[in-house]
Amino acid sequence: MKTIQVVKNILDANDRIARENRMLFDEKKIYVFNLMSSPGAGKTTLVERTIEALRDRFRIAVIEGDIQDTFDADRVARHGIPVVQINTGGACHIDGNMIREALPALELDEIDLLICENVGNLVCPAEFRIGENAKIMVLSTPEGSDKPAKYPLMFQESAALILNKMDLLPYVDFDVEKARKDALALNPKLEIFQVSCRTGEGLDGWTRWIGKQVEAYRNA
Amino acid sequence: MKTIQVVKNILDANDRIARENRMLFDEKKIYVFNLMSSPGAGKTTLVERTIEALRDRFRIAVIEGDIQDTFDADRVARHGIPVVQINTGGACHIDGNMIREALPALELDEIDLLICENVGNLVCPAEFRIGENAKIMVLSTPEGSDKPAKYPLMFQESAALILNKMDLLPYVDFDVEKARKDALALNPKLEIFQVSCRTGEGLDGWTRWIGKQVEAYRNA
Repeated sequence: MKTIQVVKNILDANDRIARENRMLFDEKKIYVFNLMSSPGAGKTTLVERTIEALRDRFRIAVIEGDIQDTFDADRVARHGIPVVQINTGGACHIDGNMIREALPALELDEIDLLICENVGNLVCPAEFRIGENAKIMVLSTPEGSDKPAKYPLMFQESAALILNKMDLLPYVDFDVEKARKDALALNPKLEIFQVSCRTGEGLDGWTRWIGKQVEAYRNA
Repeated sequence: MKTIQVVKNILDANDRIARENRMLFDEKKIYVFNLMSSPGAGKTTLVERTIEALRDRFRIAVIEGDIQDTFDADRVARHGIPVVQINTGGACHIDGNMIREALPALELDEIDLLICENVGNLVCPAEFRIGENAKIMVLSTPEGSDKPAKYPLMFQESAALILNKMDLLPYVDFDVEKARKDALALNPKLEIFQVSCRTGEGLDGWTRWIGKQVEAYRNA
């Protein structure tokens, strides 16, 4: 039982720091989303596509969370926008404190939209708030349509679900209707976008929606 | 620093239980492998294929680890072999104690090979021993060939790497040589098998190898 108490204390401490991050983001009018998925579902490609689509409307910055290395940050940096790399040193998620420690590396007065790409993991990241406006998750078709039923928390916590790699649909066993139905049963408010980050298919729906969220927040 | 100490204590306690599990498996001459991967990489299909290939040579049982539900256990049970379901209740990996608590549900005197399928997660399961002879991991081609460099621990800890979904190679960006090279740089002893659990391609190499491991252990 001691272990469980320790875990609860860690989550409580994290929530407090996440709230402090949120206050700072509100002061600076920065919309933040926390992007989560399994490894290799297409988070970084989605970040790149989102930057391309929205960079003329918003000043965008990115925080990249990885266990080690800077591969994803290097990919994003090629788009010429501010990027900070968090290396979690083995940890399987980013948390409020990691975000707090990354913020001094960014010019917060010059950011409208901050994208935080989490470590690839369909379980733990959903438990740790970072001060985000919204959690966004990616599920890719090769992972299978049983994932909402098997990993429910992330689907419950997310505002939007990007069903990625729709171009692979003919080659994999993925039941789109089942995935949509199971995800909506867990979270009836979930926005679902069917896209291929590789071909660009369906991305306009996603970028229109997230653009609207950013504007609504900044005009509130 | 306190948190780190707590984590270390949890891992130490887990190692102790894993060693006790191991002693019991040695007494019963049960070869155990711990099967790990990202969600949706194909672990359960590999389990099913392995049962089909080896059931005439060995008495096989399976422990299925899932956050909730019994989908995978139901799939395996259809093959008519003993299956125990562990529900981790939110936890992102199985550990030594969960295995210990599952064992009374199995007839240990009637098992040669025990397959433990972990929760889908490329990070945390690699840290928790369960008393296994070997850790085996699956990486599927849609996840991308950057995964060894990004999630090194699991590649370092595993005895064999199953590169699955080779049938999707024409449709995804996966550099087989890079994945092999990076994985072997992390772990020069890693056995690598290129397979498609869907078409059956390459599975004979895997089943021959794991069959040999089981026999060598049982004859030692």
